[in-house]
Amino acid sequence: MRKCVALISGGLDSFTAAAMMKAEGMELYALSFRYGQRHSVELESARKVAAFLNAREHRVLDTTLGSLGGSALTSAIAVPKDRPESGMAREIPITYVPARNTVFLSYALAWAEVLSASDIAIGANAVDYSGYPDCRPEFIEAYERMANLALAAAVEGKIRVRIRAPLLHMTKAEIIRTGLALGLDYSLTHSCYDPAPDGRACGRCDSCILRAAGFVKAGAPDPLALKA
Amino acid sequence: MRKCVALISGGLDSFTAAAMMKAEGMELYALSFRYGQRHSVELESARKVAAFLNAREHRVLDTTLGSLGGSALTSAIAVPKDRPESGMAREIPITYVPARNTVFLSYALAWAEVLSASDIAIGANAVDYSGYPDCRPEFIEAYERMANLALAAAVEGKIRVRIRAPLLHMTKAEIIRTGLALGLDYSLTHSCYDPAPDGRACGRCDSCILRAAGFVKAGAPDPLALKA
Repeated sequence: MRKCVALISGGLDSFTAAAMMKAEGMELYALSFRYGQRHSVELESARKVAAFLNAREHRVLDTTLGSLGGSALTSAIAVPKDRPESGMAREIPITYVPARNTVFLSYALAWAEVLSASDIAIGANAVDYSGYPDCRPEFIEAYERMANLALAAAVEGKIRVRIRAPLLHMTKAEIIRTGLALGLDYSLTHSCYDPAPDGRACGRCDSCILRAAGFVKAGAPDPLALKA
Repeated sequence: MRKCVALISGGLDSFTAAAMMKAEGMELYALSFRYGQRHSVELESARKVAAFLNAREHRVLDTTLGSLGGSALTSAIAVPKDRPESGMAREIPITYVPARNTVFLSYALAWAEVLSASDIAIGANAVDYSGYPDCRPEFIEAYERMANLALAAAVEGKIRVRIRAPLLHMTKAEIIRTGLALGLDYSLTHSCYDPAPDGRACGRCDSCILRAAGFVKAGAPDPLALKA
């Protein structure tokens, strides 16, 4: 059985990407991170998602990435609210965390080598929220190229690493429809950048707005909104 | 003043690489890691080296890389001893840590973006110990290419990241001669893969053997050997 290290954030994108790998018949090894996020609700969702997908193992690694600063997600900078969808795409958002996907993929790469896993799944998406440089196809391709020069197992020809970003060119509505067709329970996920102390989504940050619009366009209710 | 994030292990290679960047007139930001090494003597050396080089700042980050396993440096696998220099070059050593340089460079990249540093220095060397895949020129080049696609500051044209590996094509003797010409105190460094509980070098691992041979070929005494 082919193994896939799946980056799981607790959000719906990484859930869907991992589920698509599972649907290809791969065995999942879920990987999540503590990196100085404001809230732990993300990691609770990650645990639920990994369990739902029957991941063979779920590791949560501590990173000290947040201590380096530079992002609204890990520091005191305010998360922007109430921006229309049309205003999000052109600029790099303040919620960008320097080198986050690079760091996360690098740990996934280390684990992939230890497991002899050929595939690494990431929920990166370049359509609905193209402001993050490390969610673009050219970044993913360059990372994969580098990865196959970095690992002993790749250099020795034992594995060929593939960075799988199946959502890269999908809209949020397409992602949601794909996940629903795979039977995913999106009530387990969490997308908000700035949840309330009790973990509830704010409904006003970019991520909440994109999620809500995605469910509307997919013609499906958001089970999280129903629960709230 | 141009800024350089310098990876500092406590060994003589990274000390020399960082000193070469300083000699170019750059301001140094030293970065070291806890990653499950067997001994903390490396980090003590890293602190001394960073202080000697007048680094503007020295950060020691915790990583959980060691918990992923797969290396003699971070697990119970025995470190090989008494291998002749000629037998080291052709194979990937058991002291290889999966994706280590990839993970270290990724943190350096995050810090570089926060600092607006253009240069990242690493003591990688492909001559005397060519067994590590992530010490080869093709890896360094692929990493640099990826890095400039990953960072917001690079994509926006504010910085162009350069991964500086000035020792890549130098022999250990050339590295030592360069460092001595720059006035470096190599008694501060530590190279052993398997030091005694009191921190003293074993003298028999690959790293000790290469260091000793390097000083002999450079025609200089090893100040660490004199101290022991």
